[in-house]
Amino acid sequence: MNLTKSDIENLEHKKRLNIINSVSGIKPANLIATKSKDGQTNVAIFSSVFHLGSNPALLGFIMRPAGEVPRHTYENIKETGFYTVNHVPITIVDRAHYSSAKVDRSISEFERCGLTEEYANGFHAPFVRECHLKMGLSLVEEIPIAVNNTIMIIGQIEELIIPDQAVDEKGYIDLSLFNTAGISGLNNYYSLKREASFPYARPDEIPDFGT
Amino acid sequence: MNLTKSDIENLEHKKRLNIINSVSGIKPANLIATKSKDGQTNVAIFSSVFHLGSNPALLGFIMRPAGEVPRHTYENIKETGFYTVNHVPITIVDRAHYSSAKVDRSISEFERCGLTEEYANGFHAPFVRECHLKMGLSLVEEIPIAVNNTIMIIGQIEELIIPDQAVDEKGYIDLSLFNTAGISGLNNYYSLKREASFPYARPDEIPDFGT
Repeated sequence: MNLTKSDIENLEHKKRLNIINSVSGIKPANLIATKSKDGQTNVAIFSSVFHLGSNPALLGFIMRPAGEVPRHTYENIKETGFYTVNHVPITIVDRAHYSSAKVDRSISEFERCGLTEEYANGFHAPFVRECHLKMGLSLVEEIPIAVNNTIMIIGQIEELIIPDQAVDEKGYIDLSLFNTAGISGLNNYYSLKREASFPYARPDEIPDFGT
Repeated sequence: MNLTKSDIENLEHKKRLNIINSVSGIKPANLIATKSKDGQTNVAIFSSVFHLGSNPALLGFIMRPAGEVPRHTYENIKETGFYTVNHVPITIVDRAHYSSAKVDRSISEFERCGLTEEYANGFHAPFVRECHLKMGLSLVEEIPIAVNNTIMIIGQIEELIIPDQAVDEKGYIDLSLFNTAGISGLNNYYSLKREASFPYARPDEIPDFGT
């Protein structure tokens, strides 16, 4: 299937959404959890979390247009400055998926989706107990992306909780040891299997690939 | 393992790189290919490509600090306005990985890494023949991220090539049907297996999760 820019524009709306949301490749499955100043918690699945830098340790994620629909995650982050990012294990992708439903602000998706709030190290926002790798972040910056009215949220990792047995002496983390899931499109969930590791690629150490 | 912000700062440099590059979750494995105005091609692996929007169809990716080391990909994108993004199948992750080695500008990583340039639909930049899902993009915008001196490159999809059998009537794409790989950290490659699909999550259709 070969599609040009105008073919893509002319696709039926839902089909375009499904196709174009898949073409970046596999996406991480993370639950982002927050708590408003008055104590109302919120948790929602995001597939747009990405690595931005290691020192300082920064993650970014993309928020859809503000104002379009209520964005409790965004409001709570703005109000408190804190949020958690929690890897979704493949065993709870059903619960995680339904956290995307737009429920009333007074209802916590934790309760609605059978997820458990967990508080650790005095961090304001709740972690998700069912997740194994989880992080507490503080808001660093939001960058508006004018071209499609989205917002990139940048946060610094304040707290990092990783299962000990999943980290080796080099700091390699095997995501499959704690069943971290991937997403393609808006609806499809994948399990992961580590197949290969390679050393840092130096020009004089490139193998002979038979060329 | 529980690490605070200062624990992270105090990690040995390489260990910090490995750990923090893994905590966003699974990352997509893409080869970005370019061609300079004078015809020199370049291809390099990136794990930072992310979905930004479906209409227009936009992808973003993160470039490390410009000026730190030569960035042939960046220079060619700036010079020509075009690049391709190609999903790496798990079968060629070795070749793809070594494209990150910093070889001299006059050497094409295509040749050095046993990858094949492919030209289609009159698009300026080369696609990677060994990849099955591939896209031609035009540069839309670059957004400097001041906090760590990186740059977000935003491009619009001009050409999209997908294996027919991997797309169903809804537009769902099964990445495992053409062996698209995932990455964690800087060095670890994963195969993907689709495990579950769920419908769009409506508030009144959330299953009873036993709460």
